[in-house]
Amino acid sequence: MGGAVDDLSLVFQALADPTRRAMLSRLAAGPATVGELAEPFAMSRPAISQHLKVLERAGLIERTAHAQWRTCTLRTEPLDEASEWVDRHRGEWNERFDLLDEHLRRVKRSAERAAPQGGAPGRPKETP
Amino acid sequence: MGGAVDDLSLVFQALADPTRRAMLSRLAAGPATVGELAEPFAMSRPAISQHLKVLERAGLIERTAHAQWRTCTLRTEPLDEASEWVDRHRGEWNERFDLLDEHLRRVKRSAERAAPQGGAPGRPKETP
Repeated sequence: MGGAVDDLSLVFQALADPTRRAMLSRLAAGPATVGELAEPFAMSRPAISQHLKVLERAGLIERTAHAQWRTCTLRTEPLDEASEWVDRHRGEWNERFDLLDEHLRRVKRSAERAAPQGGAPGRPKETP
Repeated sequence: MGGAVDDLSLVFQALADPTRRAMLSRLAAGPATVGELAEPFAMSRPAISQHLKVLERAGLIERTAHAQWRTCTLRTEPLDEASEWVDRHRGEWNERFDLLDEHLRRVKRSAERAAPQGGAPGRPKETP
């Protein structure tokens, strides 16, 4: 949509503002008119419109017109993609810690086998 | 840190760029020097530095100096907060759909009771 900005960047960009996040929080409770969305903010109508445009461009809201009313509805599909990205990176990181943990456990076990306390109970004797 | 930008906005802002996300992906595999992080990108060193500054300001990386080497390490705590925000909003929305679903099921059940097919099997007969 005009420019080389990828979809995921548009979503994170849209979330990078407390007013826009508050608007999405409001919409999570159900669709709202532009007037209802604007109400909690001491902000000009053009500023509100600009925020809605950013949310719409990221695919996070859908605007529909009923007679003279314009209603905004939350769309959560882009949030799914954002959540997936974040969780994958938290996941990879935690996985690395798990691997490190497993490695340390193995090192500890082989150290215990190399210098056993009380005579290597697990090792088979050579004489019958 | 100069300005009224909240922590969560800084995190989403940092994630709103494919180069910065690629840097975090690289760091999810383990710490790296600035040179290693810069390598995949056809980008000037000042541009790389600027991206690292945005990541650092959001708390997503930590830079440590060993002798003349500067190492960058991923920090996932800010991702936890971002993930929590996103999941809460997906959750609220899905909950609304669940409530709607439950409501529709109830409506369907009472419609079935009001106009049963094949002679109200569940209703007790009046004659003994």
